[in-house]
Amino acid sequence: MKMGGLQHSENESLTAIFEGMIAPCIDIWDTDSAPPQGTSALYVAISGNTAAGKSSLIAELERRLCRLGFPAVGISERVFHHQYLRLMFSNSRDFAFPIQLSFLVERYMVLLRNLVSLRRTVIMERCHFDDLLFVEEHFQAGNIAEDQRSTYHQLALVLHARLPHPDVLVLMNPAPETSLERLARAEQRNDRPKEFPSDEAKERWVRRWHAMEVNLHKQYRQRTAQDLARAGTTLVQVDPAQDHALCRYRLRGYIEST
Amino acid sequence: MKMGGLQHSENESLTAIFEGMIAPCIDIWDTDSAPPQGTSALYVAISGNTAAGKSSLIAELERRLCRLGFPAVGISERVFHHQYLRLMFSNSRDFAFPIQLSFLVERYMVLLRNLVSLRRTVIMERCHFDDLLFVEEHFQAGNIAEDQRSTYHQLALVLHARLPHPDVLVLMNPAPETSLERLARAEQRNDRPKEFPSDEAKERWVRRWHAMEVNLHKQYRQRTAQDLARAGTTLVQVDPAQDHALCRYRLRGYIEST
Repeated sequence: MKMGGLQHSENESLTAIFEGMIAPCIDIWDTDSAPPQGTSALYVAISGNTAAGKSSLIAELERRLCRLGFPAVGISERVFHHQYLRLMFSNSRDFAFPIQLSFLVERYMVLLRNLVSLRRTVIMERCHFDDLLFVEEHFQAGNIAEDQRSTYHQLALVLHARLPHPDVLVLMNPAPETSLERLARAEQRNDRPKEFPSDEAKERWVRRWHAMEVNLHKQYRQRTAQDLARAGTTLVQVDPAQDHALCRYRLRGYIEST
Repeated sequence: MKMGGLQHSENESLTAIFEGMIAPCIDIWDTDSAPPQGTSALYVAISGNTAAGKSSLIAELERRLCRLGFPAVGISERVFHHQYLRLMFSNSRDFAFPIQLSFLVERYMVLLRNLVSLRRTVIMERCHFDDLLFVEEHFQAGNIAEDQRSTYHQLALVLHARLPHPDVLVLMNPAPETSLERLARAEQRNDRPKEFPSDEAKERWVRRWHAMEVNLHKQYRQRTAQDLARAGTTLVQVDPAQDHALCRYRLRGYIEST
């Protein structure tokens, strides 16, 4: 995908760049659109702990690409949220497994439809490999049984064989304290539903997820270096404490070169 | 569950029985309700082809039980419908498998939550064994591949091992012409979304489903007679051309005896 010259220098503030822009109106559930001709789609995934700033970055990248005339869709994990999501935390023994299955199937369908069928560039919160991490965590905590875990892995293999690997994988993982602070603020503002049964549970999950993301990102770096099938994935490490200029800059460089 | 005497004779018209009744307000997605004490829950499933009258029967039974003070929830298959449902018919090769997976997981969660956790009596459109039939049909039509089918079966085994068998299985399967006529009327009234890409496709599916349901119901009769694990299921055959008095009568008899 050749984007041509971008109009804005990286020194302009984000506010100025996005001021007055109209939010894109691409419907990821659209079942009728014909695929655009002559475009190739990119799969950009933003991987990181809760409240890392993934959604803000997705929204920025989506608007920027749409403004440049490319049919890109930003996909927040909220679209995969299930009405029983709270039960994954309050009754993990029963609901961790089916909720994770639901995420797996929903993410697969949205990627298949938007990226593969409609050839839209997708900027997605986490990638389809990330979910395996949470299943493993639930297994180790005793919330997912051995037969459930092995079936999940088999199903993930069958589904993922029909999806491309991400072209760009953005890695961001702030300190747990930063995530907790941002979560509390977002909950106070009602920007996020309260997903956890208690503050103690929330802190426990956030710290555990942070450590898991550290391992996941390490694995991504190793695999991208060693596994030929994943060599096509460009990794972009982002410091969530900084603004997203660097990420946008690197992404622009990547897109312009493809 | 002991229901005590019912106030209305079977000769009263359905209209008179249900007139002025308030629709029950039990939310199947409710995540907070505590289970009621001292009640046992029944799993009543209504199996049959499209437009057999399943939804109407479910609504009747649900209201009747709720009126008698039993927390029963009627669950139409519409609650499992996915935003990509139309793609199952227009792009079956890609979407038959994930849509069927989605049905499987959704049905499992709703049964686990309402029947098993909250111990509510559930009156459900089809039972959790019925879905296997549609997967088999898609496999034979070439829309579901061998690896997908075997993974589906393995997952269904893992999920279904954690659910009880239906206590009552109502079988209704009208002639295909009756289903087609009712579907056309419901679509004209906008009571049903148009799910099929064309009228020819609709007729093909409805006739195929009718034949499949004939086989399914035959299997249910054989298994209930031969398989000890399913011997606890009471089968009730209903002629969809008649009103539902007979079904309600038999169901009442069954519930009063348990």
